[in-house]
Amino acid sequence: MIRDAYILTLNARNDIFEKGSVIVEDDKINFVGKAERIKEKDGAFEKVIDAGSNIIMPGLIDTHVHLAQALLRSIVPDDVRLIEWLKNWVWPLQGSFDKEDGQVSAQLCMLEMLRSGTTAFVESLLHTRYGFDGIAGVALKSGMRAVLSKAVMDIPGYAGQKDVIHPGMVEDRDESLNEFKRMHAKWNGAGAGRIQVWLGPRTPGACSESLYRTVAQIAREYTAGVTMHLAEVKEDLEYFSSLKTSPGEFVNRLGLTGSRRIFAHCVWLSEDDMRVFAKTGTSVAHCPSSNMKLGSGIAPVSEMLRLGVNVCLGCDGGPSNDDYDMIREVKLAVLLQKGINLNPNALTAVEALRMATVNGAKALGLENQIGSIEVGKKADLIIVDPRRPHLFPNINPISNIVYSATGADVRSVMIDGKLVMEDNQVLTLDEDSILKAASDKAEKLLHKSGKR
Amino acid sequence: MIRDAYILTLNARNDIFEKGSVIVEDDKINFVGKAERIKEKDGAFEKVIDAGSNIIMPGLIDTHVHLAQALLRSIVPDDVRLIEWLKNWVWPLQGSFDKEDGQVSAQLCMLEMLRSGTTAFVESLLHTRYGFDGIAGVALKSGMRAVLSKAVMDIPGYAGQKDVIHPGMVEDRDESLNEFKRMHAKWNGAGAGRIQVWLGPRTPGACSESLYRTVAQIAREYTAGVTMHLAEVKEDLEYFSSLKTSPGEFVNRLGLTGSRRIFAHCVWLSEDDMRVFAKTGTSVAHCPSSNMKLGSGIAPVSEMLRLGVNVCLGCDGGPSNDDYDMIREVKLAVLLQKGINLNPNALTAVEALRMATVNGAKALGLENQIGSIEVGKKADLIIVDPRRPHLFPNINPISNIVYSATGADVRSVMIDGKLVMEDNQVLTLDEDSILKAASDKAEKLLHKSGKR
Repeated sequence: MIRDAYILTLNARNDIFEKGSVIVEDDKINFVGKAERIKEKDGAFEKVIDAGSNIIMPGLIDTHVHLAQALLRSIVPDDVRLIEWLKNWVWPLQGSFDKEDGQVSAQLCMLEMLRSGTTAFVESLLHTRYGFDGIAGVALKSGMRAVLSKAVMDIPGYAGQKDVIHPGMVEDRDESLNEFKRMHAKWNGAGAGRIQVWLGPRTPGACSESLYRTVAQIAREYTAGVTMHLAEVKEDLEYFSSLKTSPGEFVNRLGLTGSRRIFAHCVWLSEDDMRVFAKTGTSVAHCPSSNMKLGSGIAPVSEMLRLGVNVCLGCDGGPSNDDYDMIREVKLAVLLQKGINLNPNALTAVEALRMATVNGAKALGLENQIGSIEVGKKADLIIVDPRRPHLFPNINPISNIVYSATGADVRSVMIDGKLVMEDNQVLTLDEDSILKAASDKAEKLLHKSGKR
Repeated sequence: MIRDAYILTLNARNDIFEKGSVIVEDDKINFVGKAERIKEKDGAFEKVIDAGSNIIMPGLIDTHVHLAQALLRSIVPDDVRLIEWLKNWVWPLQGSFDKEDGQVSAQLCMLEMLRSGTTAFVESLLHTRYGFDGIAGVALKSGMRAVLSKAVMDIPGYAGQKDVIHPGMVEDRDESLNEFKRMHAKWNGAGAGRIQVWLGPRTPGACSESLYRTVAQIAREYTAGVTMHLAEVKEDLEYFSSLKTSPGEFVNRLGLTGSRRIFAHCVWLSEDDMRVFAKTGTSVAHCPSSNMKLGSGIAPVSEMLRLGVNVCLGCDGGPSNDDYDMIREVKLAVLLQKGINLNPNALTAVEALRMATVNGAKALGLENQIGSIEVGKKADLIIVDPRRPHLFPNINPISNIVYSATGADVRSVMIDGKLVMEDNQVLTLDEDSILKAASDKAEKLLHKSGKR
């Protein structure tokens, strides 16, 4: 039982309870609200957390993450356009990964996500060389809710450019699909359902149309989700033009739209594309930091939301952001839409916060299980400590969370009813050894890849 | 002496020293660099700080702050355009301030600035009712380097709209100028020169041309700086058009350009305006969060820098940002220019960091005294603790500071050779009592102003 909390439920009415309580039984929430008399019954609870007026809110859901990029932070140069950035830096470095690099990068990434209040994430593109079993093991141990998508490809290209992918990253069609099937059999549903295995076809130019159709078919067969990069940079749009199609029409025709289908970035969608996504219940993972840093552009989020698209949020990767802090990402998302539309109403604080919670849950097909603090839902929640100068006064906690807080203000994290961080101590991962390993592996990676 | 530090000097060559030392004597730096043998001489130093590979960098300089808005955080609604935001919320609330509100808001603001590594700031618009002596006293006690500008006005209007300013905020010409003179006599140069008193004429529409001319003349007479809001929203531009002039031409004609002249926002400058500012050595305080949140627009920072304007950075106010964290502001500034220009080279990490340090120092006329870590300069520096998951690996510390860090990673702060924060404890201000007072005053302010 958590008592004396300022609860942001993010339920359909965005109810807020001051001096409220949350009762968790096993993995689920069985009470939310004002409970003045609960104190008398403290003895009835296994554990009582006195929140001391701290803010409780749903755990954040990062719908576009590259676990294997945490280790590349501050290694890759900052001022490079997406395609060169991939070709000259990210791919050569990741193409030199061994399974230990994959595991350490995943540990570092999950450590940062937990510390900043992310409770669930979608890893969009795991190559076989990163070592799926090791990474899934880290997800299991961390306590996080994880979607792990197997990279699928049959062309070593990108948006019409051929042979651009580093040889270390190339997989063929059968190899990537078979690895998905093996992974799915071994890991899907592990951790009492915390882990899902999805398909992560590479972006257009790296997969044939026939492979996309096969992916759509396998996804139906396995009831697996699909996630993919789409229309991230202007070059993508030019590629679709050369095929006489548009991003939304392309993926819709190949059977890749619908529920549990997440397209990352979508900076360059047409209004028709947005209508297709809205109609089919397809989700968009908006990644504002990454799109800005790589000079890709600014996704038309306000317009997508207005047209009914389920837009959620993602931090993307280590060197494209360079943090995995969803609270900071929410602020950037809301500021960007107000700024580019010259309209302070273009996106509101609560809409942006819902993108990072409720909409994320919907994208994962878990809208009945996570994303808000409601009776019957899984207990995926975070406690934010507002006793910091930048969170005073605290008359409107939603405003303070969105505009003033960062992930560093998160004090405790509960996932599936289990505390995984308590009073700033991560309980499931060994922070000191992970940080040491990350430094060592990063140095070795620079040498292995010939970048130092 | 601080040893074993990763020093980002931000000198003209942006030198970085790994395992470097900084020696401070009185208020000045007298050694920076590699000093392997200094350890043997520990006894020669009054105090030795082992930085343990922490990052040392120049203190951040916030060139556009409203101290009296910290208390308005989370009180003012988030989704309102600048002029309504001022008219219906900020002015009525500030128009109800008494001197205690002014003092508590200043304490809260300086506490947050210190905690996040800001060592010097420009307060742009102090009304007499906020109580100048109390606020200057807080600045003195905090240990910060402060420019305090006296609001000057003679029309209760804004950009052609008449009588929009709350009656509580109205001052007349003589009242505001006399208060400047009194303040200047009493406080300019206090704290061994840490405090400067400047003139803060209100934005066009709130001052007559004759008053601006008088301000320019008094500034010369007192060798005082001048700071003013300029071309923040499109409505400002329309106002200048109605006067058949442009923002840069207007202030230049009235004698308000030059060294120690800072114009905040400048979202809507023409290229000619920028050339005027470049030629006259006039500074621009870019406030990206505020401009985005209020839907004001995005200042053309890359273009200004290319044309030679001294662009620095500001966090602006409590409810327009809503934080006073310059490290976060640096990241937003750099991301915005890359994003809107579709060019990852539009602004680099080190350029943005220089805006927040070296350029800020220049704007204050203190380029020979602060802004970088160099022998002979004042010891205004901060220590950032990189042992956090989001700062690993740390191959490129400039990249990590700009893209991954926040103010929460600042561990210690030195100003004028004195430690004002050490190991996350602010030494000069009483944090607990300030936070308590801020909550109390905010509640009372809501009632006093009729907003609750």
